[in-house]
Amino acid sequence: MRTSTADVDHSDAPYVIVSSDTHAGLKPEEYRPYLDQRYRAQFDEWVRNRHQHRVLIEEVNGDYVEAWERDNAEGLRGASDPAIRDRYLDADGVAGEIIFADGDSVTGQESPPFGAGLAAGQITDPELAFAGARAHNRWLAEFCATDPVRRAGVGLVPIIHGVKESLAEIAWLAGRPGIRGVMVPTMWHDKPSYGHPMYDPIWAACADAGLVVHTHSGEGDWASYNENLAQFVLEVPFWTHRILWQLLLSGKFDRFPDLRYVVVECGSYWLGDLLWKADTTFGANRKVKKLNSRTKGLIKRLPSEYIGTNVFIGASTMSREEIRRRHTNGIDALMWGTDYPHPEGSWPNTGERLRTDFRDVSIGDTRLLLGLNAVECYRLDRTALQGVAERIGPRPSDLGQDPDLRTPHDAVRTARWWFDDYGMTWPAESTS
Amino acid sequence: MRTSTADVDHSDAPYVIVSSDTHAGLKPEEYRPYLDQRYRAQFDEWVRNRHQHRVLIEEVNGDYVEAWERDNAEGLRGASDPAIRDRYLDADGVAGEIIFADGDSVTGQESPPFGAGLAAGQITDPELAFAGARAHNRWLAEFCATDPVRRAGVGLVPIIHGVKESLAEIAWLAGRPGIRGVMVPTMWHDKPSYGHPMYDPIWAACADAGLVVHTHSGEGDWASYNENLAQFVLEVPFWTHRILWQLLLSGKFDRFPDLRYVVVECGSYWLGDLLWKADTTFGANRKVKKLNSRTKGLIKRLPSEYIGTNVFIGASTMSREEIRRRHTNGIDALMWGTDYPHPEGSWPNTGERLRTDFRDVSIGDTRLLLGLNAVECYRLDRTALQGVAERIGPRPSDLGQDPDLRTPHDAVRTARWWFDDYGMTWPAESTS
Repeated sequence: MRTSTADVDHSDAPYVIVSSDTHAGLKPEEYRPYLDQRYRAQFDEWVRNRHQHRVLIEEVNGDYVEAWERDNAEGLRGASDPAIRDRYLDADGVAGEIIFADGDSVTGQESPPFGAGLAAGQITDPELAFAGARAHNRWLAEFCATDPVRRAGVGLVPIIHGVKESLAEIAWLAGRPGIRGVMVPTMWHDKPSYGHPMYDPIWAACADAGLVVHTHSGEGDWASYNENLAQFVLEVPFWTHRILWQLLLSGKFDRFPDLRYVVVECGSYWLGDLLWKADTTFGANRKVKKLNSRTKGLIKRLPSEYIGTNVFIGASTMSREEIRRRHTNGIDALMWGTDYPHPEGSWPNTGERLRTDFRDVSIGDTRLLLGLNAVECYRLDRTALQGVAERIGPRPSDLGQDPDLRTPHDAVRTARWWFDDYGMTWPAESTS
Repeated sequence: MRTSTADVDHSDAPYVIVSSDTHAGLKPEEYRPYLDQRYRAQFDEWVRNRHQHRVLIEEVNGDYVEAWERDNAEGLRGASDPAIRDRYLDADGVAGEIIFADGDSVTGQESPPFGAGLAAGQITDPELAFAGARAHNRWLAEFCATDPVRRAGVGLVPIIHGVKESLAEIAWLAGRPGIRGVMVPTMWHDKPSYGHPMYDPIWAACADAGLVVHTHSGEGDWASYNENLAQFVLEVPFWTHRILWQLLLSGKFDRFPDLRYVVVECGSYWLGDLLWKADTTFGANRKVKKLNSRTKGLIKRLPSEYIGTNVFIGASTMSREEIRRRHTNGIDALMWGTDYPHPEGSWPNTGERLRTDFRDVSIGDTRLLLGLNAVECYRLDRTALQGVAERIGPRPSDLGQDPDLRTPHDAVRTARWWFDDYGMTWPAESTS
C-alpha cells in the first residue's frame, strides 16, 4: 500500500488519463527491415503463416471481422501510424499510454516475427524468440521516440529462452526515450517458473533500469482445453497472474525493492480474494499451522502491502464491479485502460464508458485509477501529461461526477475486511 | 439453481449435519490383505517409502506432528476404527459423512497403496493405480457397510489410467451399501483433460449408478513451484476446481442430466466470481463478440443454473466470509464439512466453530449448508439421519441463533448481482 489520498485534486481539472493497455505493431511483412537478415527465410514462412491464419479466422468469424474492420478502418491504422494514433488517443481523452505488442487481436496481423509478442512462450527456438523480440523492440523504440511523453513502450524479452540474451536486450532497452518496461512470456513451459533464482539477474537489471516487468494475457495451458475456447477464456486470468505470486511469495520484492511488476489485461476481480488468502495464510496470523515450518520467513511484509508499491494491475477497461471493488483490490495499484486498438476494451467509445462507469466514483479515486497510479508505476512525466490533458482530457463534470463526493479516510481498511475478521493488525505504515 | 426454501423447518429441531469432507484409511501395511497379491513386491517398497516420508515430515515439522498426534491420539484412530469414529462423529454432532481416502494428512500414514488417493494422478503405472484404488475400495466398502446410513464412501477411480478399467471399477462400486460416489484424479497430467469425449462412458456410468463424481484438493502443478509451498497453497483451489468448468462448459451436464459433480476441500470463495464471468461471457448476453462463433451453443442453461442441480461444493469448514457469500455461491449447493480427522477443518472443535460462525445465519440457510444440500446431492436417507440427529445434533438454540431470522425471498437474486448489472434475464425456473 502506498497511497495517501490527502493531496488529491478534487477540482474540475481535466483527468490525466493513461491507458495502461494499448497495442501497437507493424503488419507481418513490414517487420522485415527490423529483423536480423539471418532469419529472412524463416521470416518469409512466418509471414505466409500469418496470412493463412487470417484466412482461418475469416472462415469461422467472417461477419464479425468484416464489420469491425469496416467500422474502424482508420483507427486500426493507428496501430503503426503515430499521427493517426494521436488523433484517436485525443478523441478518447487518453493523454498517455502503455504500449504492448500485437496491434491486431482479431486476425493477428500485427504480431512481431515468429509470434514473439503475447504468445512468445510458445516459440520453441530460442534464436527465433530473440530475433522476433529484437525486431519488434527496434521498431517500438522508434515508434515511442515520436512522443516519449505520451508513449510508454513495453519491450519484449523472452526470458525463458536465455538469461544472458535477456540481459543484453534489457541493456539495449534501458534508458531509450519512451521505453518504460519489458514483457516476459506468460507461460514458462518446460523451463523453471519465475520464482526460480536463475531469473534473479533479470529482475535485478529491470529494477536498476527502472523497467517495469509485465505479463499480459494471451497464453494458457492450451493442451488442456480440447479446443474448447470457453474454458480458456474463463481461465486466462489465472495463467496471466501466476507470476505475480511467484515473484511475491518467493521474496523477489524484498530482494529487489525497486522491482515493479504489472499484470495486464486479465481484469482485477481475482485479486482481492487472493490477497485475503495470502495475507491470512502467509501473514502474521499464520492459519495453516501444519505448514508453518515450510512457509515461514518467505516474505517481509504482508502480501497486500506489496500491492501499490511493487505490484500494479493493468486492469484495462474495468467492469463496474471491479470499480466498486477498488479499495479491496488496490486503489493505489489499479490502472484503467482502453485496450486500443483491440475490440475488447473501451475504444472507440471511451468517453461513453467513463461517463457510465465512473459516475458514482469520487474524483480523487477516479484520478488514481485513470492515470495517477500509472504515472507512479511507470514514473511518467506528470506535468507534461497534464499539458496534454488540458487539451484533450475529460473533466469530472464531463463524467457527471459529484464534486462533493469524498472517499472515506478508512475506505481501504474497511474494504480489506480480513484484517478485522481474522484479528490481524493493520499495517502500521499505511494511513489510508 | 434448485432450492425453494419454502419448506424449510425453522423450529428448534436438531440439525441433520452431514460432513461433506471426512477421511478414512488404513495404515500403509494394513492394506496388504486388500491388495491383489501380484503387487506385493511393489507394495512392500511403497510401505517403506511411506515410513521414510513420515521421518522426513518429522524432521521439518516435528513439534507440530508430536503435539497433534498426542492431543488427538484416540480420535485419529477413528480413521479406520468404526466404533471410535462414531464416538467422535457424535461428539461433533455429525450425523452423516462423505468419506474420502487419506486419513492422515499430517504424515501421510493412511494413504491407499501406491498413493492411489488424493494424489492418484501422480502414479505413472496404470496397473498400480488401479491396484491401489481397488485395495482401498475393497476396504472402504466394508467400512461403509458398518453403517450405510451415516457413512457415504467415495471410491477411487483413476480414470486417466484407463476407461475400460474405470468402467469395471464403477460397476463394482455401484449399488454397494454406503458407497455414494467416486473420486477421479485432480490432475490429468499427460492425458486428455476431462471435457474430452473419451471420458463420456465414465460420466454415463456414474450418472446411471447415482455415483457422484468428485475431485478433491491434493494435487497441483508441482513442477511450477520450485519447492515453494506457499505458491501451491494459494493455487490449490484452481487445480481442484478446473474439472468443474471442463464438465460444465463442454456440456456434460446437458448430455448426462443425472451426472452430479462435487469439488471438495478447496473452499467456495472462488465460485461466485467465476459464475459472474461464465454467465456473462457464455450466457444469453454474450459479451465477447469476437469469440461468439466459437463458443455458441456450448451449454443449454446459464452456468450458474447448474449449481445446485449438477454441481455441488464440498466446502469443508467454511470461513465466515464464505458463509456470508452463500447466496452468491450457491445456498443450494454449498456443503459444510469437518475434514475429520485432518487438522485443517473444525474437528475436534466443531461445536465451537458452529456457534461462532452460524450465529447470524437463518435456521433455514443453516439446515441447507450443514446437511440438507448433502442429503440432496448424495440422495441420503434423510429420515434415518434425522433419527441420528435427534440423539446428537446441535439445535439452533445451541448455536445461539435467532429463531425469527428469515432469509429474504430474493436473497439469491440480490446476491447474483451480475444479472441486473449486465441486464440479463433472471432464469424463469428459479423462484428464489
